Amino acid sequence: MATRRDDLTRAAARLFAERGFHGTSMGDLAEALGVQKGSLYSHTGSKQQLLFETMRAGADAFHAALDAVPEDASAVERIRLALRGHLRVVVEQLDVATVFTREWRYLDDTYRAEIVAERRRYEERFRALFREGVEAGELRPDLDAATAALLVLSAANWAYTWLTPERETDELADRFTAILVDGIRGYATPA
Amino acid sequence: MATRRDDLTRAAARLFAERGFHGTSMGDLAEALGVQKGSLYSHTGSKQQLLFETMRAGADAFHAALDAVPEDASAVERIRLALRGHLRVVVEQLDVATVFTREWRYLDDTYRAEIVAERRRYEERFRALFREGVEAGELRPDLDAATAALLVLSAANWAYTWLTPERETDELADRFTAILVDGIRGYATPA
Repeated sequence: MATRRDDLTRAAARLFAERGFHGTSMGDLAEALGVQKGSLYSHTGSKQQLLFETMRAGADAFHAALDAVPEDASAVERIRLALRGHLRVVVEQLDVATVFTREWRYLDDTYRAEIVAERRRYEERFRALFREGVEAGELRPDLDAATAALLVLSAANWAYTWLTPERETDELADRFTAILVDGIRGYATPA
Repeated sequence: MATRRDDLTRAAARLFAERGFHGTSMGDLAEALGVQKGSLYSHTGSKQQLLFETMRAGADAFHAALDAVPEDASAVERIRLALRGHLRVVVEQLDVATVFTREWRYLDDTYRAEIVAERRRYEERFRALFREGVEAGELRPDLDAATAALLVLSAANWAYTWLTPERETDELADRFTAILVDGIRGYATPA
C-alpha cells in the first residue's frame, strides 16, 4: 500500500473534523484512502492512535508557531506575532486545528494526559508573553496576565469556526491586537 | 410514559454534549430516559428533531440574556452585562451551550438555516452594542465594531470549554470587559 503516514494523518484529520471522532469509522477512513479496512488496521493500530497523531500534529504546529516569535521584540509585537502565528496554523491546517480544539475529549486517558499537558504548556507560554510585558513596564502594571491570555487564546481557539483561507488572517490578528492594546473607550470619555 | 418534553431535550443535550451528535444513538437516549426505543421515536420524531430542539433552546436562552440588558445603560455597561449574560447561559446550561456552539453543523439543511439565522441575529445584536457606543461618542471613533464584537463573542463562545459552575462567571466577564475597555498598554508608554 502506497499510503504514507502523513496521508493517513491528513485523511483522519479531515474525516474527524467533518464528522467528529465518533462519527468516523475505520471503514470511512479505509474508503477515503482507497485501501482495505484490514490493511488499515495493521498500519495504524487504532482510531484512537490516529486521533492522537492528529492532536500531536496540532500541538507541534501551535508550538512551532510560537517558537518563530522573536524573543527580542517588544511585548505588544510578540503578542501580535503570536496571534498571527496561531491564526495561521488554524487557517493553513484547518482540519488539524479543528480536531485539536474540539475532539481532544475523546482521547483515551493516557493519550489525553499528554495532549492536555501540551495545551497547558502552550497556554502558559501565551501567559508569559503578557507577564513579561508587565514586568518590562510595557504593559499596564495592574494587568491580569492570565485573564488577558485567556481572552486572546479563547478568541483564537474559536477561530476554527469562522476562519477561511480567503480571510486575511494576519490583518485580523493585527486588528484584534489593536483593540486589545488600546482598548475601546473613547479618548474624550472621563475615566 | 411520564417523560416530559423538557426532560427529553435535557437528556438529549447532555448526551449530545458528552458524546457528540453522531456518537449518540436513539438507544442511548432511550436508556438515559428509561423508556423503550420504540416509544421514544413516537414521542420525538427523530434524533435530528431533538438536536434542533436543543439548538432552539440555546438560541432562546442567548437572546433572552441579551433582552435583559437595559437599553438606557452606557455602552460599556451594556457590553459588560451582555458578556455576563452570555457566560451565565453557558455555565447554567452548559450542555445546551456546548451543543449550540459545537454540534450545529450536523443539523439537516432546513433546521440549520433557521439556527444559523438565529446565530447571525445574535451576532448582529452584539455588533450593535459596539456600533451604538461609537455613535454615542462613548467608544473610540475609529473602533471597528465588527472586529470588537467578533473578539468578544469568540472568547465568550469558547467559554464552554473552560467555564465551570465554580468559577465566578460575572467576575470573569467584568475582567474581560476591563481589559477590552482600557487596553493592555502601559500608561507611560509612548503611543
